[in-house]
Amino acid sequence: MARNTKVPADHNAPPVTRTLAKLVATHPSKGWSAAVEKEAHRTFLNWVGCAIGAAQHESVAAALGAVNMLKPSAQSTVLGRGDKVDMAGAALINGISSHTFDFDDTHLKTIIHPAGPVASAVLALAETTGASGRQVIDALVLGIDVSCRVGNMMYPEHYDRGWHITGSTGTLGAAAGCARLLGLDEATTLMALGIAASQPIGMREQFGTMTKPFHPGGAARAGLMSALLAKNGFTASPKAIEAARGMAQTISTKNDWNEITDELGQRFEISFNTYKPFACGIVIHPTIDAATQLRAKGVKPEDVERVELKVHSLVLELTGKKEPKDGLEGKFSVYHGFAAGLMVGRAGEHEYDDAFVNRPDMVALRRKVVATVDDSIDEAAADVVAVMKDGRREPVFVKNAIGSLENPLTDAMLEAKFRDMGEPVIGKAKVDAAIAACWKLGEAKDVSAVIAGAKP
Amino acid sequence: MARNTKVPADHNAPPVTRTLAKLVATHPSKGWSAAVEKEAHRTFLNWVGCAIGAAQHESVAAALGAVNMLKPSAQSTVLGRGDKVDMAGAALINGISSHTFDFDDTHLKTIIHPAGPVASAVLALAETTGASGRQVIDALVLGIDVSCRVGNMMYPEHYDRGWHITGSTGTLGAAAGCARLLGLDEATTLMALGIAASQPIGMREQFGTMTKPFHPGGAARAGLMSALLAKNGFTASPKAIEAARGMAQTISTKNDWNEITDELGQRFEISFNTYKPFACGIVIHPTIDAATQLRAKGVKPEDVERVELKVHSLVLELTGKKEPKDGLEGKFSVYHGFAAGLMVGRAGEHEYDDAFVNRPDMVALRRKVVATVDDSIDEAAADVVAVMKDGRREPVFVKNAIGSLENPLTDAMLEAKFRDMGEPVIGKAKVDAAIAACWKLGEAKDVSAVIAGAKP
Repeated sequence: MARNTKVPADHNAPPVTRTLAKLVATHPSKGWSAAVEKEAHRTFLNWVGCAIGAAQHESVAAALGAVNMLKPSAQSTVLGRGDKVDMAGAALINGISSHTFDFDDTHLKTIIHPAGPVASAVLALAETTGASGRQVIDALVLGIDVSCRVGNMMYPEHYDRGWHITGSTGTLGAAAGCARLLGLDEATTLMALGIAASQPIGMREQFGTMTKPFHPGGAARAGLMSALLAKNGFTASPKAIEAARGMAQTISTKNDWNEITDELGQRFEISFNTYKPFACGIVIHPTIDAATQLRAKGVKPEDVERVELKVHSLVLELTGKKEPKDGLEGKFSVYHGFAAGLMVGRAGEHEYDDAFVNRPDMVALRRKVVATVDDSIDEAAADVVAVMKDGRREPVFVKNAIGSLENPLTDAMLEAKFRDMGEPVIGKAKVDAAIAACWKLGEAKDVSAVIAGAKP
Repeated sequence: MARNTKVPADHNAPPVTRTLAKLVATHPSKGWSAAVEKEAHRTFLNWVGCAIGAAQHESVAAALGAVNMLKPSAQSTVLGRGDKVDMAGAALINGISSHTFDFDDTHLKTIIHPAGPVASAVLALAETTGASGRQVIDALVLGIDVSCRVGNMMYPEHYDRGWHITGSTGTLGAAAGCARLLGLDEATTLMALGIAASQPIGMREQFGTMTKPFHPGGAARAGLMSALLAKNGFTASPKAIEAARGMAQTISTKNDWNEITDELGQRFEISFNTYKPFACGIVIHPTIDAATQLRAKGVKPEDVERVELKVHSLVLELTGKKEPKDGLEGKFSVYHGFAAGLMVGRAGEHEYDDAFVNRPDMVALRRKVVATVDDSIDEAAADVVAVMKDGRREPVFVKNAIGSLENPLTDAMLEAKFRDMGEPVIGKAKVDAAIAACWKLGEAKDVSAVIAGAKP
């Protein structure tokens, strides 16, 4: 029995599903600025590097083991490994891989990691269909616009309630990207989005388990299948996102419909994508940035008496672990982050392995850090003074950490991050080839150069 | 950033994920009454009939077309067709097929259609692994217990909010059934349920589109994959259902945890499963039942002057279409339902095709029905008087319609329903074989006899 009256609902929402379908199906190829086009390539490159970097992780091995139980056909490639599985399986596994180190991209307005669902689905589909690089970039920009706009619409209530917003909006983004790549018309794209709207994925309780990276992978897979279903004539509600008992009102009590239409087709959310320079939660980044600046000034760990660190209270709430015992705990320690930055000038995945976290000189250095709370300092800033054994004080104030929207990673830094993750997995020559192919993707006849570079 | 404080949550929920995992992994085979065992076979038989019946529907063709784009291996069978696809694809397609006519089973306490997600996943997996019929029945009983108990816990708020509860709880039921079938231990079953908990599927806005039957199909597929992932070492939160930011609290504001543990392992929710005798919404069933009783008494349409029908207001709200123009509209017409019952003594899928709905004698007969609202009559009852042209009045009051929990379909009626759906698709000999195999499933060495019967 259809009980429709017991929970309040907005019965007059604008037709946002149709609005998004029209954008996806009809926006001109490369219909955006050179800056957007460049950001799409940066997003793609960063995502490929992350996926390669975690390719040998046990989460990826487990997912590949499950997919192989289906005896899949060899359609698309698992990045960093070279195994081929069917395109839906590849979308799943690459999505898992790219988010396993929590080192992928971030749309800061919503904390969505947008590439995981969208790029994983689009690349797997493109490898199977032989789509051009141009089509892939177009699909990436438009798919990410869909997921991030839906995220803008529901954030923060939807996230606060418990949804891992990357997966819950990612199915729509992946469906949009795949619909675009398949060249579906507006009516069919509308069905693809409608089918996807029934499949939001992921709760925040899963953070710290393999199911967290499953969320973008599962969203990639579900979005890809939604597009294939629509292409084959499967139907859904044309109001599946906005209807009273549709996706958005079922999973969020806040829905600012205007976020869908505001500057649609003019402002692209991929413009606001950012890339982590450090393999840990973003609130630690200003502190690590300060440490690397001190190191660049010549401050040496052995000359430091103590470090006075002032940060917003949220930083210590989330990452206040003083004595991390292993790599995972290290990710939640602003003390370890500072020590890594000063000791080696970086905080990549290697600086979060158990051995590095337990190095005696690292333990000694992080014990010199005295953190205090100062809520007059922004969450995204850090105020650091290194007090030297000779009494000198070396201050650094970081307002916008490297990797923030205001202080983005340079292309060279993105490449260095890619190398850092990729070379141990596939070697330097392959990394060179993959990086070159990513930068040239928009002009490539297909994705074969990316795939060739991105496997051992 | 982990924002955990903005939406209220219960941080002291009991460990229901673990409780359910223990039941699934450790409850003895056939550890229930003969009545439960029988109901499991009735549930399975009804589900097979429904899946065969819709096998040629365009929703199934579209889903098969999408799955075939993955070039799947030939592991498991699409019921009613005989195509073989990988087991995940078969779970998806059979789940869609079995719910396409909205003619499958109903757990009335929650309006869950429990077999769609669970049986679709379990049979597809069993065909691939060669599991015994005993294992299939055990998996079906335990899987349905998981999904329906989670449904009891969240209903009605969760449904009222917008979730199609069949799909949102079905992923857990399918994961539970597949975990049992794979023989996963308690710890691994816990992971399977945890992975599944991130994948509730389906919003009610999709009712009337193919995405409605996609919900049990998608849940079957996702649940099966969750079990395969867990078997391969994939991890999830052990509190994925009950945690503050876990599944249940994210998708329902009502969570009566006691529904999970109440008489667990003693009372099985499959005991409360029911089967529709008529291919329409359940509120019309008492009226159709009354019409068939009048017909059995010898009342002929041409002798009827008018029909006085008194029902609860909800019946006319939901199914008050006086002049249905096609089969789909006929499903929402209590007038057509009555006319079919009196004219031919049944209301199967054939009585909802466009031609039958528009037959002149049917149009004339349903116009004789005068429906009035009387909220002193239960939603599940109907008060009917046929006023004859000679002035006689023939009253029938139906308190518990055929197919209700109090007045269940007999085995013979279930078989007749199966024949009605199956014979046009696979022929009488195959239907005979399939029905016989379903009744004997609990003793079968594998599912091959069911599969052999259930295809052309």
